[in-house]
Amino acid sequence: MTSSLPLRSAGVTAPAGFRAAGIHAGIKASGKKDLTLVVNDGPLDVASGVFTTNKVKAAPVLWSQQVLTQHRVRAVVLNSGCANACTGPEGFQDTHATAEKVAEVLDCGAGEVAVCSTGLIGERIPMDALLPGVDAVAAALASTNEAGVDAATAVMTTDSVPKYAELSHQGFSVGGFAKGAGMCAPNMATMLSVITTDAVIDAELADAALRAAVGTTFNRLTVDSSTSTNDTVLLLASGASGVTPTADEFTGVLTAVCRDLVLQLQADAEGVTKHVSVTVSGATDDADAERVARAVADDPLVKTAFFGSDPNWGRIAMAVGKADAAVDPDRLDITLNGVKVCAGGVRGEDRSLADLSGKEITVLVELGLGAGTATVLTTDLSHAYVEENSAYSS
Amino acid sequence: MTSSLPLRSAGVTAPAGFRAAGIHAGIKASGKKDLTLVVNDGPLDVASGVFTTNKVKAAPVLWSQQVLTQHRVRAVVLNSGCANACTGPEGFQDTHATAEKVAEVLDCGAGEVAVCSTGLIGERIPMDALLPGVDAVAAALASTNEAGVDAATAVMTTDSVPKYAELSHQGFSVGGFAKGAGMCAPNMATMLSVITTDAVIDAELADAALRAAVGTTFNRLTVDSSTSTNDTVLLLASGASGVTPTADEFTGVLTAVCRDLVLQLQADAEGVTKHVSVTVSGATDDADAERVARAVADDPLVKTAFFGSDPNWGRIAMAVGKADAAVDPDRLDITLNGVKVCAGGVRGEDRSLADLSGKEITVLVELGLGAGTATVLTTDLSHAYVEENSAYSS
Repeated sequence: MTSSLPLRSAGVTAPAGFRAAGIHAGIKASGKKDLTLVVNDGPLDVASGVFTTNKVKAAPVLWSQQVLTQHRVRAVVLNSGCANACTGPEGFQDTHATAEKVAEVLDCGAGEVAVCSTGLIGERIPMDALLPGVDAVAAALASTNEAGVDAATAVMTTDSVPKYAELSHQGFSVGGFAKGAGMCAPNMATMLSVITTDAVIDAELADAALRAAVGTTFNRLTVDSSTSTNDTVLLLASGASGVTPTADEFTGVLTAVCRDLVLQLQADAEGVTKHVSVTVSGATDDADAERVARAVADDPLVKTAFFGSDPNWGRIAMAVGKADAAVDPDRLDITLNGVKVCAGGVRGEDRSLADLSGKEITVLVELGLGAGTATVLTTDLSHAYVEENSAYSS
Repeated sequence: MTSSLPLRSAGVTAPAGFRAAGIHAGIKASGKKDLTLVVNDGPLDVASGVFTTNKVKAAPVLWSQQVLTQHRVRAVVLNSGCANACTGPEGFQDTHATAEKVAEVLDCGAGEVAVCSTGLIGERIPMDALLPGVDAVAAALASTNEAGVDAATAVMTTDSVPKYAELSHQGFSVGGFAKGAGMCAPNMATMLSVITTDAVIDAELADAALRAAVGTTFNRLTVDSSTSTNDTVLLLASGASGVTPTADEFTGVLTAVCRDLVLQLQADAEGVTKHVSVTVSGATDDADAERVARAVADDPLVKTAFFGSDPNWGRIAMAVGKADAAVDPDRLDITLNGVKVCAGGVRGEDRSLADLSGKEITVLVELGLGAGTATVLTTDLSHAYVEENSAYSS
């Protein structure tokens, strides 16, 4: 479809018809930015969303799922510093009050305002900081590159850098930001991403394209197999370009932007020292391939071996064998960074030939059973991951 | 049935009718013990076994599964230092040759000799060390306490202490050893355990009792969700006590010994600083309860929080919600070391009241849906686990 690579200069403000801002409202004690607002100025206000499959859903997820049933979103307000999850009816009321406040400031209906939150689970949101913050963030709204970057910055928690990307194609563009570094096994999506477009699309295409793009990008990243309570990806279309792309065109551009955001998430995952790509081919079907790829990508013995740059293919064979999928041990090939260390289920080329000392590790698992294939991205399991997740509550 | 606690003085040699030994044959470069032999002198030679559910099975597992179809075992030979997994037909031939050698020395059939191996996956076993080792270990056979401890010692890999236990009851006894510290999510059993009894039991009771005992003991421990290629638990009955227990009596004593061995495995797990017990009650059924307990016990964010002595119940709620089980977020209670930190899905007592600074952590998750219950044992995820599994191949 397109061979262009996404840029990283603005994110959500790259498409026409959008303004954004990110400020410090006082939710985080650190003084860092913690409140983002993204506004769609139209002419369209078509939207689609995908949300966590975790049965314990945060209040803003429950609220935004309701909003998205209408496929119309005028604004998204996002806070970091508090997940507003496991907070009961009072937490839901906080989310509702947040949407009402944004609606009042923007002169629209609360039912057109999606809400996202990220941070510690089980704590109430400090509304005395958030509500005045809505006035301040609305006053800062702009369509500049800087505003797009501020918006991407104010959703960060353990992220060390903001993640954003945009891609223009045949007169329309798609831009977005994402956050997420741990509790990250998106299914459906990783912790908070907002994607904007000025293409002219309807709700049906928005839904279909978002589900297709997320299925092969956000949902194929696993940092730690821990599916968050707050995962949300929202797509907002302004129609401001006046360009009506084909479904394939739009889905292709959207997928390219999502993939770029996911690579940024992987690169900034908690404690990451390796970027690992696990591709399984020859499975009975794609679902089996994905189950095997996830079993390898989530196995702590495989991940600690990668941290040690150790081409320990026996641990990969173990993980393949424990997956809930059809596996014939005698047909198993494993290739690490181009070296086929396991062939037909036994030792192939010498493992010492597989150099895993660099940052990129590519694992190819060939099952020899069918045409099913899947790729899952992951990271290593490092001392820094343990440190980051044991030293304080997050 | 019995309120006696197992002792730890001999293990497999505690029941009458058994001899054992453990020596250094030269499989491990370290000079540590690496070859164990357990012999059943009868009068019975009834046996049962349970094996890994991993689809990638080591050669000795494939061999011993064949042997156990006859429910008769005269001897078990076990080596550490090499798993003989992913070694193809040649690896299976090595196992066969090992059984033939043991049969020759003991003057029995190779089909009466079970074989177990543990160590690095994907490497051939050094038969030039193992075969002479069989002569040496047979010459060392004895029914003393010391011989039982030697047998438990020679199967160790990353274990730091040998694990063994025995329990006498109404004139018969059950004893056993086990090894396993990582790649340990037994399903069915953890890496290598041999259990002996002098009770008079038949093959049917041996099978039923072993499956019942393993299901509630070995299969409820998870160190790292990594199911090994070599897991094997064998039960050997000599009948030498002349005592014929009831099925309930025998199963009770066997389960007590298995539970004791599992607690020893948990206490010596790789990098362990906490002994964690996760009990789920109120699930729709026991299977759902076990799925929720495993989701909590295997979650790396939960395990790193425990390493940090952090009562971070939000991460537990997240793990409960991602489990493939019926969950109503509004009925969820979570109790940490006696403090109900989450009640009805929201914050309960202050988390700071839950003191997790000690070694024992008890997690109670109440789902409020039904009568299903399950307990899974696990450990924390520590720097030492990462160090042990990244610093060298194992």
